[in-house]
Amino acid sequence: MSKLETKLAETRQVMNELLDSLLPLPNGREKRVVEAMRYSAISTGKALRPFLTLTVGEMLGTSTQTALRIGAAIELLHTYSLIHDDLPAMDNDTLRRGRPTNHIQFDEATAILAGDALQSLAFEVLASPETHPDATVRTRLVSELARSAGMNGMVGGQMLDLIGETTVLDLSEIERMQALKTGALLWFACMAPALTVQTSSEEREALAQYSRAIGLLFQITDDILDVEGDTTAMGKTLGKDSEAHKSTFVSILGLNKAKSLARSLTERGLAAISIFGKRADMLAETLTFILERKR
Amino acid sequence: MSKLETKLAETRQVMNELLDSLLPLPNGREKRVVEAMRYSAISTGKALRPFLTLTVGEMLGTSTQTALRIGAAIELLHTYSLIHDDLPAMDNDTLRRGRPTNHIQFDEATAILAGDALQSLAFEVLASPETHPDATVRTRLVSELARSAGMNGMVGGQMLDLIGETTVLDLSEIERMQALKTGALLWFACMAPALTVQTSSEEREALAQYSRAIGLLFQITDDILDVEGDTTAMGKTLGKDSEAHKSTFVSILGLNKAKSLARSLTERGLAAISIFGKRADMLAETLTFILERKR
Repeated sequence: MSKLETKLAETRQVMNELLDSLLPLPNGREKRVVEAMRYSAISTGKALRPFLTLTVGEMLGTSTQTALRIGAAIELLHTYSLIHDDLPAMDNDTLRRGRPTNHIQFDEATAILAGDALQSLAFEVLASPETHPDATVRTRLVSELARSAGMNGMVGGQMLDLIGETTVLDLSEIERMQALKTGALLWFACMAPALTVQTSSEEREALAQYSRAIGLLFQITDDILDVEGDTTAMGKTLGKDSEAHKSTFVSILGLNKAKSLARSLTERGLAAISIFGKRADMLAETLTFILERKR
Repeated sequence: MSKLETKLAETRQVMNELLDSLLPLPNGREKRVVEAMRYSAISTGKALRPFLTLTVGEMLGTSTQTALRIGAAIELLHTYSLIHDDLPAMDNDTLRRGRPTNHIQFDEATAILAGDALQSLAFEVLASPETHPDATVRTRLVSELARSAGMNGMVGGQMLDLIGETTVLDLSEIERMQALKTGALLWFACMAPALTVQTSSEEREALAQYSRAIGLLFQITDDILDVEGDTTAMGKTLGKDSEAHKSTFVSILGLNKAKSLARSLTERGLAAISIFGKRADMLAETLTFILERKR
């Protein structure tokens, strides 16, 4: 296991411990919704987003507790989006990370509510003094996560993705869809630590460029895996995009051009973080890891 | 039209203007989700919650802009909950305020996304410096709204409500369901202005008691209207609770005891706010208005 894979596994473990403490089961019968929240949030997922937050945080000198709680808020937000995206009215997925999706394991109503409450909890975590002693920093974190999550971010992107099921999107629309759907939250994962300490505008711009490169790279490699991957290893249903006639980077560019774009995005990401020098080694390794990932 | 009804109508209008400015249509095709958000948020609803925030805010000396933006955040949050509660997997309602529900007017996926983005926007509004100059106040508002909305508040209550469709809830569980489902957000509507200015613990306790009384009163009169009301005047489908064999205050207590409880709750609410003297006249009138409402 590479140093990066070890750190990803450690991030997953420490996130699960924190999420466990943030999701205590109440006594009342409404505990069903908390069980559903825990089922999806405490997971075997890659934890790429909190990993990025922790890694950038270490590089910039953000306190560990601050970075961990930002990471947990991102995981809560991301988990809500996965639960809602899997719903029958959306992507209608039955398998996620090798397990039944939330609405299959529980039911549709509970899954909708679990997603809703996970989103509330993400903001509750960020607003708490335990996340950062300075309230101005906390409100900035809340603002930026809300913006990344909402109509001009993740939700806007999911809307475009759904429109893409019945309408042909062109390349610029696919890029816009990705920038909103997955890019906005990845931007927040990379940028949030920079909001908690003194940083130069050059550093923030470098992190923004890095997050854009990694976001696009992640989507393109996802589209490639949807065509080339193996359902058992991926733990989710594959080939769904082409089956649904969804416009993807692969369907528009073809497999070879998509792969070549992935390589040049990796280069672009590496160039962006060069201003941090050796301190950004782990961020650099992450790009290569995503480029070469099998699952 | 009474002074209170005039003020309710004015609140609705000023809320709609503010919500209109908070929900600009983007250029991209994802504007569909913003159209859906606007369809439900900019409405003819009673605006009871922002009315309470504005009224308590005036009484305590909260600035108008602060109270208006808190009111808008509550309306955004409340609207998201209505859209999601109306979904086929939840209450499966097709009519709301005399118009097709969001998922009927648009589609299920768009309605889920519109609700999700309305929730994000509520927190974005509260975290903005335009809401209050003091960041500590803003993080407190975010924390308390998140708590009121989430698993230990509104969502927990909706979960209990759904469980009550297949299980018989007793009176204490019905009360708990109401306290979570509608009580938590009403608590926030009454309490939020007190978080923005200096208030005594007696004043905050009085507001908390008032909000509990008004919350229970609202639910009981709702249950009574579901049995006695008129679909056309209400603008929503009635008789659904008894049809769904849902446990309600009326089904457990009977109509007469429910009406007598409503009267004693009105007295309890009036007693709670007596410490504010004449300044609380409008809050007192609101209790009577809810007790006697026809729709």
